[in-house]
Amino acid sequence: MRRSPSPGWLGSTPVTGTADDEPGETVIDLAALAARIERPDEAARAAARERQACLTKPTGALGRLEDLSVWLAGVQGQSPPRPLRRVRVVVFAGDHGIARAGVSAYPPEVTAQMVSGFLAGTAAVNVLARTVGAGVRVVDVAVDAETPALISAHKIRRSSGRIDVEDALTRAEAEAAFRAGMVIADEEVDAGADLLVPGDMGIGNTTPAAVLTGVLTGCDAAAVMGRGTGIDDATWMRKCAAVRDAMHRTRKALADPLGVLATGGGADLAAMTGFLLQAAVRRTPVVLDGVVSGAAALVGQRIAFRAVDWWLAGHRSPEPAHEKALNRLALQPVLDHGLRLGEGTGALLAVPLLRAAQATLAEMATFADAGVSGRVETTARASDAT
Amino acid sequence: MRRSPSPGWLGSTPVTGTADDEPGETVIDLAALAARIERPDEAARAAARERQACLTKPTGALGRLEDLSVWLAGVQGQSPPRPLRRVRVVVFAGDHGIARAGVSAYPPEVTAQMVSGFLAGTAAVNVLARTVGAGVRVVDVAVDAETPALISAHKIRRSSGRIDVEDALTRAEAEAAFRAGMVIADEEVDAGADLLVPGDMGIGNTTPAAVLTGVLTGCDAAAVMGRGTGIDDATWMRKCAAVRDAMHRTRKALADPLGVLATGGGADLAAMTGFLLQAAVRRTPVVLDGVVSGAAALVGQRIAFRAVDWWLAGHRSPEPAHEKALNRLALQPVLDHGLRLGEGTGALLAVPLLRAAQATLAEMATFADAGVSGRVETTARASDAT
Repeated sequence: MRRSPSPGWLGSTPVTGTADDEPGETVIDLAALAARIERPDEAARAAARERQACLTKPTGALGRLEDLSVWLAGVQGQSPPRPLRRVRVVVFAGDHGIARAGVSAYPPEVTAQMVSGFLAGTAAVNVLARTVGAGVRVVDVAVDAETPALISAHKIRRSSGRIDVEDALTRAEAEAAFRAGMVIADEEVDAGADLLVPGDMGIGNTTPAAVLTGVLTGCDAAAVMGRGTGIDDATWMRKCAAVRDAMHRTRKALADPLGVLATGGGADLAAMTGFLLQAAVRRTPVVLDGVVSGAAALVGQRIAFRAVDWWLAGHRSPEPAHEKALNRLALQPVLDHGLRLGEGTGALLAVPLLRAAQATLAEMATFADAGVSGRVETTARASDAT
Repeated sequence: MRRSPSPGWLGSTPVTGTADDEPGETVIDLAALAARIERPDEAARAAARERQACLTKPTGALGRLEDLSVWLAGVQGQSPPRPLRRVRVVVFAGDHGIARAGVSAYPPEVTAQMVSGFLAGTAAVNVLARTVGAGVRVVDVAVDAETPALISAHKIRRSSGRIDVEDALTRAEAEAAFRAGMVIADEEVDAGADLLVPGDMGIGNTTPAAVLTGVLTGCDAAAVMGRGTGIDDATWMRKCAAVRDAMHRTRKALADPLGVLATGGGADLAAMTGFLLQAAVRRTPVVLDGVVSGAAALVGQRIAFRAVDWWLAGHRSPEPAHEKALNRLALQPVLDHGLRLGEGTGALLAVPLLRAAQATLAEMATFADAGVSGRVETTARASDAT
């Protein structure tokens, strides 16, 4: 297993600038970050494909599981891949000023209430994490309430700005959030995580996700707009106007990924983007969740297109922006079950399929092992057909 | 929990006839069997739906998981449903004379070799069963080889007949196989199984599956014909002719489900049909696998249309006959990952999703438990929107 030294981005290759940088300049050196992201191991992928062909089953008969096993071999750098031992969900929680514009079916205080639920272990992400043996970490990056010190060490501010009329974050806040995500990825990898899942919680967070997706895929507001937590027509119209206005503001920053996050994103999206990219730097695979992590992945792709090879799309959300994001990322979701909850739940449901892919490639007998006959030659058999 | 007394079909309600029955008459009383199949518990289903609406998540946000939790509540007769404690795969292994007609990419001796693999625990079904904590039982109903006594107690014959030119089974053999399947279901339920998965192994078995599906859905041979284990064009043409001829023979028995199994099916398909129906009698849920269990389910539906409520379609196989069968059964598959291996593998992949559905409904907090705010009224919030 190859793994980059930690924490690489603070190490001998400087990717951060100095305090003397001009305001407005990128303090985080995104090009240096991108350069640290390698490709998954092609030799391990080839070995996995070769082994699949020898297992006691018809060629290709395990369908998508075979592709998943090859992906896992590549990101782990070995074939057959190892069992996943430490799967970690990191839920990035943050409020959004846009929620005050009436774009959600739920009031903003639900964010903090749900964070309490995560800590109590009673939310969907906790339950699903238990069913797949994953751990859950909650990080308050911008919840509009006081939260326990345990989760607020990386807090950037209380609520990101209302993106239809103001920037979500200052430039410095966007960088701090992005850097927090990188630090968290490093911490998780250093603690032994072998699969990371980005989760999200924040009333209104599908609005900045739609904005980023719209801007980065070149779609109109109406094309990336969904029903979020289940909004009615009047709310949909308000959300559509908000997305349109925020996209208008955000497009001006298009050349600068951190500017995009600062203008039309939020602290949670910025942190998640840093998290996804640093996971790739650390050669650690990620299962993406729904529309929020999809939007962060799009920004990440803009920064380092190679990073996408380290990410698997866990599921397809019914939010229209997610389909657009998956297309642009060229990722084929593992599941399509109509989940639109966020928190990392859709990604967690894909974990058993990854485990199944790993186990079949690692544990099944080959034809040679088992003394099972291979395919017959058609010509030899044709004489039997009458 | 309600569960019928075991073994009900041998009990006070006689469903078997006497030895004096005319040859050709149904010795197993299928109408009596069908009458013993009840509906899942509608009250438990309603309670599950009600509880879903109170969980700390937007309404419907768990997508298909919510439907699965309702199904599980109904078949278990309680809400929230219990965790699945004993999931059992029963692999019905049997050879088919039609394999000698060159319809498969693999030689018939692979059936017995794979059975050895199942016993050694190195086949795909073993590996996937381990990943989901399920047990695997192998039953030789018609393998064309001597097999260990452990698995051959229900053996009907060595290989079913070549269905394009002769019946698969005699009437007595079809009944014996069907009854063996019922006995096995009873044994498994009596031993505590709370979820059953029918698996299949038999070179050439997608041919009788296509025949039964074609006859029972009213499709032409070409419409139900697939590539099985991965056959080439010449083999496909041979298989198509065989399916056409076997369908022609089988249609004559259409009024009589056991006659259909005897003419165009095989011992494995007959046993699986009895197994599926007896599971429904015993109020025990089943996850169906691919095209072989789909064909058995179609015969079972013909015998007792209510039985389908006890079955979940684990996945969609790329075999065209499977799609036709699912449509006729009105079952929506849980997964669609291109698996075409049989053995029960596709069904096993769906088990973690069922577990996730159970766990979310049983373990998540409700809004009331957690003190989380519910949906806001749109009118109240509209004044905030600018």
